[in-house]
Amino acid sequence: MALIEALAKYVPGAAPHAAPQAAYTLITSHFVNWFIPICGLIGIAFALLQWHIVSKIKVSPEAGRYNEYVAVEDGTDDQGVIHKVAEIQEAISKGAIAFLSTEYYYVGIFMVIFFVVIFLFLGSVDNFNTKWTACDTNPSGYCAPTVAIAFFSALAFALGAGTSLVCGFLGMKIATYANARTTLEARKGVGHAFIVAFRSGSVMGFLLTSLGLLVLFATITGYKYYFGADWIGLYESIAGYGLGGSSVALFGRVGGGIYTKAADVGADLVGKVERGIPEDDPRNPAVIADNVGDNVGDIAGMGSDLFGSFAESTCAALVISSLSSLGHAHSFAAMSFPLLITAAGILICLITTLFATDFHIIKTVKEIEPSLKRQLIISTLLMTPTIFAVAHYSLPAEFTINVVGHEPKPVKNWYMFFSVASGLWAGLIIGFVTEFFTSNAYQPVQDVADSCRTGAATNIIFGLALGYKSVIIPVFAIAAAVYTSYQLAAMYGIACAALGMLSTLSTGLAIDAYGPICDNAGGIAEMAGMGESIRERTDALDAAGNTTAAIGKGFAIGSAALVSLALFGAYVNRAGISVVNVIQPEEFCGLLVGAMLPYWFSAMTMKSVGKAALAMVEEVRRQFNTIRGLMEGTAKPDYERCVKISTDASIREMIAPGALVILTPVIAGTLFGTRALSGVLAGALVSGVQIAISASNTGGAWDNAKKYIEAGASEHAKSLGPKGSDAYKAAVIGDTVGDPLKDTSGPSLNILIKLMAVESLVLAPFFKAHGGIIFGGNH
Amino acid sequence: MALIEALAKYVPGAAPHAAPQAAYTLITSHFVNWFIPICGLIGIAFALLQWHIVSKIKVSPEAGRYNEYVAVEDGTDDQGVIHKVAEIQEAISKGAIAFLSTEYYYVGIFMVIFFVVIFLFLGSVDNFNTKWTACDTNPSGYCAPTVAIAFFSALAFALGAGTSLVCGFLGMKIATYANARTTLEARKGVGHAFIVAFRSGSVMGFLLTSLGLLVLFATITGYKYYFGADWIGLYESIAGYGLGGSSVALFGRVGGGIYTKAADVGADLVGKVERGIPEDDPRNPAVIADNVGDNVGDIAGMGSDLFGSFAESTCAALVISSLSSLGHAHSFAAMSFPLLITAAGILICLITTLFATDFHIIKTVKEIEPSLKRQLIISTLLMTPTIFAVAHYSLPAEFTINVVGHEPKPVKNWYMFFSVASGLWAGLIIGFVTEFFTSNAYQPVQDVADSCRTGAATNIIFGLALGYKSVIIPVFAIAAAVYTSYQLAAMYGIACAALGMLSTLSTGLAIDAYGPICDNAGGIAEMAGMGESIRERTDALDAAGNTTAAIGKGFAIGSAALVSLALFGAYVNRAGISVVNVIQPEEFCGLLVGAMLPYWFSAMTMKSVGKAALAMVEEVRRQFNTIRGLMEGTAKPDYERCVKISTDASIREMIAPGALVILTPVIAGTLFGTRALSGVLAGALVSGVQIAISASNTGGAWDNAKKYIEAGASEHAKSLGPKGSDAYKAAVIGDTVGDPLKDTSGPSLNILIKLMAVESLVLAPFFKAHGGIIFGGNH
Repeated sequence: MALIEALAKYVPGAAPHAAPQAAYTLITSHFVNWFIPICGLIGIAFALLQWHIVSKIKVSPEAGRYNEYVAVEDGTDDQGVIHKVAEIQEAISKGAIAFLSTEYYYVGIFMVIFFVVIFLFLGSVDNFNTKWTACDTNPSGYCAPTVAIAFFSALAFALGAGTSLVCGFLGMKIATYANARTTLEARKGVGHAFIVAFRSGSVMGFLLTSLGLLVLFATITGYKYYFGADWIGLYESIAGYGLGGSSVALFGRVGGGIYTKAADVGADLVGKVERGIPEDDPRNPAVIADNVGDNVGDIAGMGSDLFGSFAESTCAALVISSLSSLGHAHSFAAMSFPLLITAAGILICLITTLFATDFHIIKTVKEIEPSLKRQLIISTLLMTPTIFAVAHYSLPAEFTINVVGHEPKPVKNWYMFFSVASGLWAGLIIGFVTEFFTSNAYQPVQDVADSCRTGAATNIIFGLALGYKSVIIPVFAIAAAVYTSYQLAAMYGIACAALGMLSTLSTGLAIDAYGPICDNAGGIAEMAGMGESIRERTDALDAAGNTTAAIGKGFAIGSAALVSLALFGAYVNRAGISVVNVIQPEEFCGLLVGAMLPYWFSAMTMKSVGKAALAMVEEVRRQFNTIRGLMEGTAKPDYERCVKISTDASIREMIAPGALVILTPVIAGTLFGTRALSGVLAGALVSGVQIAISASNTGGAWDNAKKYIEAGASEHAKSLGPKGSDAYKAAVIGDTVGDPLKDTSGPSLNILIKLMAVESLVLAPFFKAHGGIIFGGNH
Repeated sequence: MALIEALAKYVPGAAPHAAPQAAYTLITSHFVNWFIPICGLIGIAFALLQWHIVSKIKVSPEAGRYNEYVAVEDGTDDQGVIHKVAEIQEAISKGAIAFLSTEYYYVGIFMVIFFVVIFLFLGSVDNFNTKWTACDTNPSGYCAPTVAIAFFSALAFALGAGTSLVCGFLGMKIATYANARTTLEARKGVGHAFIVAFRSGSVMGFLLTSLGLLVLFATITGYKYYFGADWIGLYESIAGYGLGGSSVALFGRVGGGIYTKAADVGADLVGKVERGIPEDDPRNPAVIADNVGDNVGDIAGMGSDLFGSFAESTCAALVISSLSSLGHAHSFAAMSFPLLITAAGILICLITTLFATDFHIIKTVKEIEPSLKRQLIISTLLMTPTIFAVAHYSLPAEFTINVVGHEPKPVKNWYMFFSVASGLWAGLIIGFVTEFFTSNAYQPVQDVADSCRTGAATNIIFGLALGYKSVIIPVFAIAAAVYTSYQLAAMYGIACAALGMLSTLSTGLAIDAYGPICDNAGGIAEMAGMGESIRERTDALDAAGNTTAAIGKGFAIGSAALVSLALFGAYVNRAGISVVNVIQPEEFCGLLVGAMLPYWFSAMTMKSVGKAALAMVEEVRRQFNTIRGLMEGTAKPDYERCVKISTDASIREMIAPGALVILTPVIAGTLFGTRALSGVLAGALVSGVQIAISASNTGGAWDNAKKYIEAGASEHAKSLGPKGSDAYKAAVIGDTVGDPLKDTSGPSLNILIKLMAVESLVLAPFFKAHGGIIFGGNH
């Protein structure tokens, strides 16, 4: 315990600590019952306030306030432009709703089936027993019946999925509401546009975190009425919430990832390559689908992914602590530690947001990226002491965590500060490393751009090598967080480290959602035929969004790694496995096959994008060939049909990779037993992290290497350009290869590793009871 | 033990088996002492015979026998052509020797240092104790002193390295001797050329296997005089042999991989791209280095890699069995089971070779690939009953294997048949799958070729997806072999499964060495200005070589995976770790970081190729600019200088990746302890296998997709071509990206996973005694 002794030096009065009464906390359950809902409501109120401020900008020409812009813009037909902007916005918004309603239809079917599966699998563990049975795991001496745990798990699953769906819907709504407003504000100046986009992003951020927290808290409160003293049963059932969140993320990330790239590639291949019209040209039938895709991928996809991480890490922490002395002593305040971290995080993020929208308002293009980066730094700095306070007030001075096969582990409350903080700071390190490897302000991307001199092949080789290299530090950061938090508080520490990384989620999501809003704003400016100066401003806003998107992906995979490990720990606990010994053949074969799964999955998703893009290409070609006057601009293309093609293709093409994710734990657990499954989970986790990080960063670097040559901002960049030079063409090839890597297969791996883990956790009792049909089972 | 019961049905008289006397074997030690050397000598004699047959073809124009060709060739100046051929061959041969002597110089330095390190590290375990000490692990009751184990381990290391060096030298010698002879024989017909190339390949195959076996056997026999009854100390010291073999493979694979691609890319970039002269044009100063490179990569590199696998798996099997009841009962015949498999394998491969060189002689181009594939099938079919016989005669009916932390595992001799056979057949499956994914006779490569229609980007995406997909079945095959062999005989089973995969090594190496010989033969034909018809024949021979090269790489990585696992098991044993529990933070962090290492290593090797190629580009440019009359063909380029540039660059650029491999176990073991190191080994193994397979197959597929368009053998292929079409250019980009993937970073990963494992095994006692400085060590 050299680590603990070293850390103790920095904690006031920590060293000579006599353990006081085990369950005594400085705050009461009563306080918690008020504090969490209030934080959630403050977050929602803040989100609505931001929405209100954004909504003051009127897009419709009939509204009175638009006149103020006339003075700003020079020479364009202002009435006509606003009319066009409104029209385009409506088309994008309708397209987004069309995608969501189709997606939600299938999510609905999936949920009903999965609801039944969960109920049947868990209910069958003890033959659908409906009676409370005697047990020694909780104070009252009685445990809830199997059928109740099965039902409430399935219900929590539905609630988690439902919350994720509502958040995704609202996020898309505000994003497609804000894009046109950002375009219009860009006429006043880059600062004005920035604030609109950022405010709108924060609506998504705060709504998601607050709603997620409130629904989860309400569910726990509701379940308490049924479960009474059986907190273990209660929190085991709550784990379904995480599964629900993650299942929606499967559709959001995988389906959304396929959608966005199918539309993007399809639009480009026919529009740019075959017809020679510029990007975002309104004559291109796929242009609306392309703009919808930006929102689908980075708003709905990223949102559901991170919502899943939040829900899962909270559930993992709750399951583990329900088995600890905290659960045994029925200390609700202490049990709520994970929720309190999130609640406090909402307040911190609120203050952080003000730094971007009120305390310091940017004016020039150069300030955009630093301003966004400052958000990350401020939120991390403010969150650090907050974590200490939450740990100090909500946790008893000392408690114990159960570790299967070992003595219970004594944990001091300040250990939890270091656990949570290790995740928080690992996240910041990952963010900075990602920026270093994907922003064209630094050497790595400039080297990749330089390699375009000798052609596309060297560009690809250098880009792949960059992605591989960018994995090193993030992996060490994650390993350090894992080591620290586990040494301090075993698997509970790891779950809380994941929560630490996600504690600034509202800010992270705001920054992330900012990207596609600006991307859309640029598209609308182009489609509406606005001036060059406007387009330059939206381009600058968009460029910053590219880097923040990469950082967001870094956070997402970093937190996914920690979450999966925590879920893995909880699974092992629930499955009654005391060691995952990889020199045993079951575990080793599982590990080997698990490490292969990300490759299989990536091969599938990459192929899916290809097939979906092909479907789009055919439709766009068809429209250009059959609609008269389309190229001349006298006839309108059938946008809806392209949106439908993209939507249908994305749903159809996600079935195979989705099935791989959903079925692997079921097959491994049922046929080969809980131990083989534990190997699969560990293998997929450690292998998936690497591919996900390298794929995201490789793609981001290629994209920005292209932008670096395009912008020609330095002597070096000018020597490679201009647009159309051989080096530029090589850079475009890299960018195209990177598209599916960074927007589909890379980020989708988060879902692979998380969903398999949470599914295994929820279904663990079934595998334990009935699993291992082949080769003699679990032992 | 459902598996064993199922298998027992197929074994005559297996089921109701009462265990007879534990150590009784049907053959005696005496028999073994004769049989193994005789098999080794037969192998060497056979190799020399092949060499003799090849040497009958005279290259020098002064020799009498060349006249017979005059009648065959039409119109070319025969005397002049043979003269040129002789000249070129000499240049390649000199270049190869130049590379080897430089490489061996550095290998020598490295070996001296490493010899000392091994001695000091192992000697320090027990303070360089020089006395025999009492112990209960062997019958005499006394164990050899630490300093003796340290010394003999270091000596075995030197012997292993030395044998690998000698084999590499001889392999290069025969390859550079046979290339020109293959060219000349191609004038008689494709069948004649095929036999020369194949015979020469088999010289390498049989020499390497036989010499490896003989030296190892002689070392064991010699060590017996010192160690007496302490067989555990004896075989632990022998493990150094594996480390020696693997260390040379580091230079061969990594250094050789960098060499071959630096020369290839450097020659192409200036010659083909800048100066517009064809491939293998004698005016290109790098052309000899390029041809040397083919031998360096696929002869010396592949040879040392597979020699390493053979040495390591044998050592792992010996270490494990020395701890078993076989070792305890001092049954030398039974202990020699791994060596007997290899010895019998030599005889089987000898018979197999005759099928290609004598029983069925090919006549047309179409027969080449099936003939090579038939070699694999025949050797596997013949080997299967042979394994049964070896197990039946050399092993007692039942014996026990020690498993740390468990009861000793009872093993019947027929279990070992299934263990070894599972490896053998897994190898065949991997071979077939590799062929399916990399040969342009099948759908996958044709799809990749088809994707070139839409440009280089789609080609890259499809190629990457193909590589990812090609991992699935090999991983399942390896997992099945691991599961089967472990269930039957724990880690001994796995080591023997690796040996099974390598039991047909002589044939595998012959097929593999055939490739670069034909590649060189084509180059020589071009350089000597021989007719189009000759070039067509050598091209056809070379095309088949491409597929067999990919198959060879599949075998190499498959066996590397099994070997590493066996070494890992032996390491765990020797380090006294009873479980590798990946839910502990040390192991998990090790696993995560270990899974990252292949990415780090690949980033390094890819960058190394880039830098080395750049050095070559500069030299070639310099020669074109400064040597007058070079382009006109009136002056000769300075080939030696390019060879030297390539050699020096490859040695310099392998330092960083080499250091990563060598230092990781030392750092992890010393600082973080044996448990963290066990995680690192497992992580690197399961992650490295995937990247290695996908990188090799992706590269192979791109290469053959290009060749598919080039050859235009079908309607579909014709629609994509001809040479110079847009689709073809896209295919060339893919091929260039694939070069470092398939010839440098992919195959080098074998070394990463094997060398780290064997180094850990050899140094395990040191880590156990002194490791874990940070974070409190091993427990």
